[in-house]
Amino acid sequence: MREACGVIGCVLARSTPDGVVNVARMIYLGLVALQHRGQESAGIVTSEGPASTHFNYQKGDGLVAAIFTDEKLNKLKGDMGLGHTRYSTAGGRDPTNTQPFMVHTRHGPLATAHNGELINAMALRKAIMDRGVGLSTLSDSELITQMLSQAPPRGEKAKPDWGARIRHLIEATPTAYSLVVMQEDKIYGVRDPFGNRPLCIGRLMPLGTANDDEQRKPLGWVFSSESCAFQSMGATLMREVYPGEIVELSPDGVRSLDIVPRPKRTAPHSNAHGDPDDIDHETILLGPPPAFCIFEYVYFARADSVFEGQQVYSVRQRCGRQLAIESPVDADIISTVPESATPAALGFSLESGIPYIEVLCKNRYVGRSFIQPDTRSRKLAVAKKFGALSENLMGRRVVLVDDSIVRGTTVGPIIQLLRQAGAKEVHIRVASPPLKHPCYMGINIPTRGELLANQKPLEELASHVGADSLAYLSIEGLRKAVRQGIVLKNNIPTGHCTACLDGNYPVNLEW
Amino acid sequence: MREACGVIGCVLARSTPDGVVNVARMIYLGLVALQHRGQESAGIVTSEGPASTHFNYQKGDGLVAAIFTDEKLNKLKGDMGLGHTRYSTAGGRDPTNTQPFMVHTRHGPLATAHNGELINAMALRKAIMDRGVGLSTLSDSELITQMLSQAPPRGEKAKPDWGARIRHLIEATPTAYSLVVMQEDKIYGVRDPFGNRPLCIGRLMPLGTANDDEQRKPLGWVFSSESCAFQSMGATLMREVYPGEIVELSPDGVRSLDIVPRPKRTAPHSNAHGDPDDIDHETILLGPPPAFCIFEYVYFARADSVFEGQQVYSVRQRCGRQLAIESPVDADIISTVPESATPAALGFSLESGIPYIEVLCKNRYVGRSFIQPDTRSRKLAVAKKFGALSENLMGRRVVLVDDSIVRGTTVGPIIQLLRQAGAKEVHIRVASPPLKHPCYMGINIPTRGELLANQKPLEELASHVGADSLAYLSIEGLRKAVRQGIVLKNNIPTGHCTACLDGNYPVNLEW
Amino acid sequence: MREACGVIGCVLARSTPDGVVNVARMIYLGLVALQHRGQESAGIVTSEGPASTHFNYQKGDGLVAAIFTDEKLNKLKGDMGLGHTRYSTAGGRDPTNTQPFMVHTRHGPLATAHNGELINAMALRKAIMDRGVGLSTLSDSELITQMLSQAPPRGEKAKPDWGARIRHLIEATPTAYSLVVMQEDKIYGVRDPFGNRPLCIGRLMPLGTANDDEQRKPLGWVFSSESCAFQSMGATLMREVYPGEIVELSPDGVRSLDIVPRPKRTAPHSNAHGDPDDIDHETILLGPPPAFCIFEYVYFARADSVFEGQQVYSVRQRCGRQLAIESPVDADIISTVPESATPAALGFSLESGIPYIEVLCKNRYVGRSFIQPDTRSRKLAVAKKFGALSENLMGRRVVLVDDSIVRGTTVGPIIQLLRQAGAKEVHIRVASPPLKHPCYMGINIPTRGELLANQKPLEELASHVGADSLAYLSIEGLRKAVRQGIVLKNNIPTGHCTACLDGNYPVNLEW
Amino acid sequence: MREACGVIGCVLARSTPDGVVNVARMIYLGLVALQHRGQESAGIVTSEGPASTHFNYQKGDGLVAAIFTDEKLNKLKGDMGLGHTRYSTAGGRDPTNTQPFMVHTRHGPLATAHNGELINAMALRKAIMDRGVGLSTLSDSELITQMLSQAPPRGEKAKPDWGARIRHLIEATPTAYSLVVMQEDKIYGVRDPFGNRPLCIGRLMPLGTANDDEQRKPLGWVFSSESCAFQSMGATLMREVYPGEIVELSPDGVRSLDIVPRPKRTAPHSNAHGDPDDIDHETILLGPPPAFCIFEYVYFARADSVFEGQQVYSVRQRCGRQLAIESPVDADIISTVPESATPAALGFSLESGIPYIEVLCKNRYVGRSFIQPDTRSRKLAVAKKFGALSENLMGRRVVLVDDSIVRGTTVGPIIQLLRQAGAKEVHIRVASPPLKHPCYMGINIPTRGELLANQKPLEELASHVGADSLAYLSIEGLRKAVRQGIVLKNNIPTGHCTACLDGNYPVNLEW
Repeated sequence: MREACGVIGCVLARSTPDGVVNVARMIYLGLVALQHRGQESAGIVTSEGPASTHFNYQKGDGLVAAIFTDEKLNKLKGDMGLGHTRYSTAGGRDPTNTQPFMVHTRHGPLATAHNGELINAMALRKAIMDRGVGLSTLSDSELITQMLSQAPPRGEKAKPDWGARIRHLIEATPTAYSLVVMQEDKIYGVRDPFGNRPLCIGRLMPLGTANDDEQRKPLGWVFSSESCAFQSMGATLMREVYPGEIVELSPDGVRSLDIVPRPKRTAPHSNAHGDPDDIDHETILLGPPPAFCIFEYVYFARADSVFEGQQVYSVRQRCGRQLAIESPVDADIISTVPESATPAALGFSLESGIPYIEVLCKNRYVGRSFIQPDTRSRKLAVAKKFGALSENLMGRRVVLVDDSIVRGTTVGPIIQLLRQAGAKEVHIRVASPPLKHPCYMGINIPTRGELLANQKPLEELASHVGADSLAYLSIEGLRKAVRQGIVLKNNIPTGHCTACLDGNYPVNLEW
Repeated sequence: MREACGVIGCVLARSTPDGVVNVARMIYLGLVALQHRGQESAGIVTSEGPASTHFNYQKGDGLVAAIFTDEKLNKLKGDMGLGHTRYSTAGGRDPTNTQPFMVHTRHGPLATAHNGELINAMALRKAIMDRGVGLSTLSDSELITQMLSQAPPRGEKAKPDWGARIRHLIEATPTAYSLVVMQEDKIYGVRDPFGNRPLCIGRLMPLGTANDDEQRKPLGWVFSSESCAFQSMGATLMREVYPGEIVELSPDGVRSLDIVPRPKRTAPHSNAHGDPDDIDHETILLGPPPAFCIFEYVYFARADSVFEGQQVYSVRQRCGRQLAIESPVDADIISTVPESATPAALGFSLESGIPYIEVLCKNRYVGRSFIQPDTRSRKLAVAKKFGALSENLMGRRVVLVDDSIVRGTTVGPIIQLLRQAGAKEVHIRVASPPLKHPCYMGINIPTRGELLANQKPLEELASHVGADSLAYLSIEGLRKAVRQGIVLKNNIPTGHCTACLDGNYPVNLEW
Repeated sequence: MREACGVIGCVLARSTPDGVVNVARMIYLGLVALQHRGQESAGIVTSEGPASTHFNYQKGDGLVAAIFTDEKLNKLKGDMGLGHTRYSTAGGRDPTNTQPFMVHTRHGPLATAHNGELINAMALRKAIMDRGVGLSTLSDSELITQMLSQAPPRGEKAKPDWGARIRHLIEATPTAYSLVVMQEDKIYGVRDPFGNRPLCIGRLMPLGTANDDEQRKPLGWVFSSESCAFQSMGATLMREVYPGEIVELSPDGVRSLDIVPRPKRTAPHSNAHGDPDDIDHETILLGPPPAFCIFEYVYFARADSVFEGQQVYSVRQRCGRQLAIESPVDADIISTVPESATPAALGFSLESGIPYIEVLCKNRYVGRSFIQPDTRSRKLAVAKKFGALSENLMGRRVVLVDDSIVRGTTVGPIIQLLRQAGAKEVHIRVASPPLKHPCYMGINIPTRGELLANQKPLEELASHVGADSLAYLSIEGLRKAVRQGIVLKNNIPTGHCTACLDGNYPVNLEW
Repeated sequence: MREACGVIGCVLARSTPDGVVNVARMIYLGLVALQHRGQESAGIVTSEGPASTHFNYQKGDGLVAAIFTDEKLNKLKGDMGLGHTRYSTAGGRDPTNTQPFMVHTRHGPLATAHNGELINAMALRKAIMDRGVGLSTLSDSELITQMLSQAPPRGEKAKPDWGARIRHLIEATPTAYSLVVMQEDKIYGVRDPFGNRPLCIGRLMPLGTANDDEQRKPLGWVFSSESCAFQSMGATLMREVYPGEIVELSPDGVRSLDIVPRPKRTAPHSNAHGDPDDIDHETILLGPPPAFCIFEYVYFARADSVFEGQQVYSVRQRCGRQLAIESPVDADIISTVPESATPAALGFSLESGIPYIEVLCKNRYVGRSFIQPDTRSRKLAVAKKFGALSENLMGRRVVLVDDSIVRGTTVGPIIQLLRQAGAKEVHIRVASPPLKHPCYMGINIPTRGELLANQKPLEELASHVGADSLAYLSIEGLRKAVRQGIVLKNNIPTGHCTACLDGNYPVNLEW
């Protein structure tokens, strides 16, 4: 399972002394912090301000730290910019899909970067091409820039109303995207009306300790897919962009331009993803509830990121606690498949009172697999990745907590490894419900047939993978673990997309 | 002085047995033969035929032979394709300008490759952007594809009339380009109405010697910027595409679709470039005369290429003869600045009766210059490139023929080299007239101030560069050398653009 | 602090069916498992057996998985080979130092790979050069191969006695190295008489589950710096090579050839490193006690490796327990600097009864630092590497366990990070004693002045780094944690080198 | 047929003002001028003078201009150095064979670079290995450095007598090599006693035109395989190193240390290569005549290089004249296979009075061939390389002069090309005798069976390749063309190795 992307937008304040903050390097630091969201390619684009007829652009394949040499960063002059790090979802075949995507419009250069997948991309493509426009890539990014370029009123000389143009885009495609848009002197941050993908706003602060007024003035403002990037950039989280909201960053600060309501026309089951507590509230927006991707909590986000007022780590720990309540085991030790399942394992340990200890040692340098592995190398694939801590396992009954099971090809060999290293019993506990449905909102999930949970009845899975027992967290348990810590002001409604677990998509797929 | 590009288009015949001819490899061979027209980057795109929803595309920076590995060529499946090798003229700043340029349209994929520069590119850009279309590059290629995509009638489902669409494009931009366009199952070749850039048609033949019918059937058809590529591909020259003509290649053969006349509205001096003999002829086209770039003969084209029915080598040799008539010298030997001036030097020798011999030995491996040369290395720059053949020079009066002088920075050190090696006198003869004006048709000429001919009066040039005498070929002499060998059927009018020599541009620059 | 190297040697059994095991791929898997011991370059050399006049060799810079493509591995034919992955210690300046090092001798090709540093390298170099031999590198590897080549008797035609030759080498250089040597049909594994660097022997087993005789026969035998590689290769640990022992692997199995005693002439304090319990034992070897590098336990080795009969993870956990006994704190939570300090932190938690929880989230993608960082980027260096889990820290008194402190430049910013994220108190506990002395045995330790423990008195360190308290494990505590789990048969004496902690080097440095 | 190598050695004068001349850049320029002698890899090594304990070294694969970036050149500090550009002859298999080869000896660092092949390399290897020395490569370079390192007296502390050591080497191996040796503060240039490979001495001069004394003082001295490098470096040819001579360059100037006589024990036919005129002279050296490789004149050297007092171009032109005398043709035009055969073709034209004109246009960008060519691409291989100038060929009888024919695979397709382009008759004239024997002196000649001249009787060759007639230059004709221009002072004897033509090797091959 792979996340689509991480995005950054950053604008320096009007009053920032020259050279104190370098926008390109700040974006670089932000992208490094979002690297877990995409490792295939990355790009940074900067604007040198109002008179710009073009943007500065650098990109490359691979990891952020390898792409952006000092030489490249030095070319990225300007005081505002966008950054992007990606996995390929749509547009994979084309080699020109690295974001940000940049076009020249009659109102000057325009750059965008987004996370997610337009649910009605095919229909939008067709509409754009039917207007006689050739599309040079297969990516959603180009659709977005062309939608923004052609938004009415067209052909005028006057300064365009970018807020209205972006609203035009949002009305044309209901989900799933978080988007940053840069024109010559402003950056806009947008979440789709369902808030499916995350985006938050930060304030770039001076790092010194002096307490005078100068020291309390912000140096600039930042959009980021996750708040974990703010700490790396020396910024602090202000709040998330609301579902459907259009927020403008300029050298003068942050301004909320508009909130586009969720469309009435939604999928049959669309209410299912709303959190029941919210449904009857008076909300600031009418329509169906939001649909924030619940797997951001389970799997994608970095543990120190904050969504809906709560830190992801705490949600994962509560998932582990809930799992211990739902599916307890009589065991000697609780352990983790490092490293992502550790908070859940610690939660399971806390709730059950059974001590936590490590049993697998992860090799950080595994690298690529052989292209043509021989039989023996294939059998050793898991042993290449994990070493067993036999002295911790010898004669013990082990509960091994994993964060999710997708294809289920790794868990069997791991169990075998633990038994060979002396484990007496191995009980698998998965801190999320079984994946059963495809995602059309930007997450790369294997086909239905490849998903373990669709291959075998739940009660046969333990013996299939060689475990003494196997249990998943319930969907309701996951929702409970998530909802428990939400802290939101302003009566912002919440709701989570659980389509990959229960098939309840937030919008009709034939939008 | 640098040429913009070389283009290839190739379609295999319907009846070609599988595997006899591989289109990607044929295009590769053609590009290698056109490599002298551009060495910065190259690309090949192929179509797998009628049902294609996308084209196969491979490109890279550097020389054709380095870019197209067997692995890349093997991915270029299909029986028709385009190839391009380029220098950057317009669009240089953008890293995505390698051609062919490809877009997805409502009628399927579309690829184009061209040589030249649209004289009214800025106006076209503006018109396209005013329609609300974002342009993702600064290149003419994208303008061309968007012009073709948006050509009326738009939005229809029926098979588009590509001939009409291309005519729409030609009517919008009078010069200077030769263009190949591929849609899923056909390739179109186009020269602008002034015929400024070259393009010719070839027939791909079996290589065997058998004389049965099968052996006489063509294997396919080819467009190429120069006919020299045909020999490399095993093809024979059929004819040139006429100025303003649209020619279609399909698996069934070659079809001339249309000839677009030169526009009436032309530059004030536009008649100047017409060959006087042609002006009063009844021509197949009305309007001002064509304006084929005369520097293709002087400098750009490979010596074995054929334009207007004559081989380039012969024109260059006649330039040398004419130069000997115009500016004779009493000397012991005639020699050349290798390798491009050799035909002119041999012509000078033939006409003057003075023996030809080599005096400079060229180092083929010179490579890049130092980024930060020390003084000594800078002084040795010419000595790095040429070795003097002192035994041929000792005590002799030398006429050194060069094909053109642009900045004049090389000729001085060469003269010094010859004198140090023993030359008694050095007379410079330049087989083309002095360059004085910028080119807006796709040729990269230094700015007016950098051109040697604009820096000094003609009579001071010899002493400026240290020569005993220095003379250029006259403009009239060049035109004579060119016209003398033209062999064209069908009353095709001819005319040559000499704007860089005399400032007579074929069209008004504010088109 | 950086380890020098990891070595592998692997020989397939005579009876192995063709194609079941590929030696190059097994060595590759072993090197991937040893990658933590060196990430600068790696090499693999294989022999095709008795008639070989040369070996097959592939090497490269960077990570093992990036260097050894399928193509390279396929060229490494043969049934025995050596592998090496390295940091540069000696010989750094020279670009040809990647190991294995290979020479051609009168007895055919010879390859060696080692871990460590010859304490008397300068004297050996001089002796070899005084014999009129030119040395083409500055590396210890070449010294070793030349010592083996020139070992008496020289010039004979008969099959050389490699055991005697290697003994000759060992007698010439007492420490610090573990070494694998390959000649055409055998591999030798050697530890220096002090056993300073580790080396162990494994048996390569079939992976199937069938229980017939065929399934119980070993497929081959392996040397590895650490036993963690065996699991990755599908091998099982037989035992460690003893200090001073020469072990031969051939297609027929494992044979111990010789044990070279520790020299009498040793450093003044040399007894200090012996474990007191062993000193009076009747040992299989006379002379001073061994001196196994204690930092293999503390820092270098992978947690699942086994030395002296105990798993490294358990030693580290006992270090944490011992630290909790020596320097207890009244706190709310125990945590770790991920990932290497986790076993010690869990040990501290177990012993103190204070719950363990994570407070730092490590970014796995940090990559290189800027070459020319601006001030702000420099200040953010630690924030780039670690994210704070604020919900776990808020209002709490934290004990942060680290495995060692070298320069102390990271701990201060981490403490600041924790406080900013809400920590009420931060107590640092270091699970090893302070580093105070240089290592001459192959470990790269900063110069004396750079070591934090040499910069400030212990009692000032806490306030220097901004901690509420700071304590190290005592040297005696470390020795206790190590000794407690040692399980060795055959009365093998043990002893550990603690020179970097207490300055007691195992041998006189002017050897 | 491929040459082995080009070598450079350069020492700056004591009095050179700092920064006027940069040795590394001068060597770079020299290597670029010698690039035609080897294009596989290149290296430069410099010494920072008397106190040096190591040399600075940079090397790489490919062309000199691509390897030596400014960054690399800037690292090559020092005022003296060696350079080398190579093809692989001996030692090909090993990846570490790029020269210069560098070793550390008891007298400090030592670097060597050579051109040629030691005729008794196998025996030397054996002798070195029998002394107990391991050899880390298969190259002659390492043999040479080890021979120099071990030269008696060994082990002494006093300054070594490098002249005596080099003489020791020369006495051990009679041919074929030119060699430059650098120790910390001097460079030695050596030609083997037979003078088989070339080496000459140049004086590096100020480039300014001022005529004061300062301007006439040399800046340094240079060794180079060919004098063509001197012009590129701003040096002038002093003389060649004599066969067997050892010449020393130091900051104080040039000193001839010794001349080692040719050994008495020579090959049975060894007299055959002596020039008869020299045999009875009183010579400065006794023994058999020298044996300078005659193919340096025919093929390898750059046309502007000078050997034995004559420029190579003139020899080639005389070969063409001689060929016209030996094998005249009644034809319309004389032409060349560009570019190396042009001087011979011009000579043929001068002698015969038949006009010279070009008929083939060479593509400079041909690059590599396909790894897996299809049939059609294979047939087009020659058409890829050469374009026919049909207007020069039409209806004419052509004499095509080539410099040598090795395998004869190209000449057939070229003849076919000329006929297709209209040639009425094609007569092949080869300006050197047929190659019939292998070279053991450093030139890569195909095996005997692959040589065209060994496949067919001479009289059948014309019809075999499709020519109307075909003739080679006679061996005597070649010797005459060479001897005619020799200008040597001091009664230096001359003689040329023609072993590849007549099998008369200068020394017994079982030396």
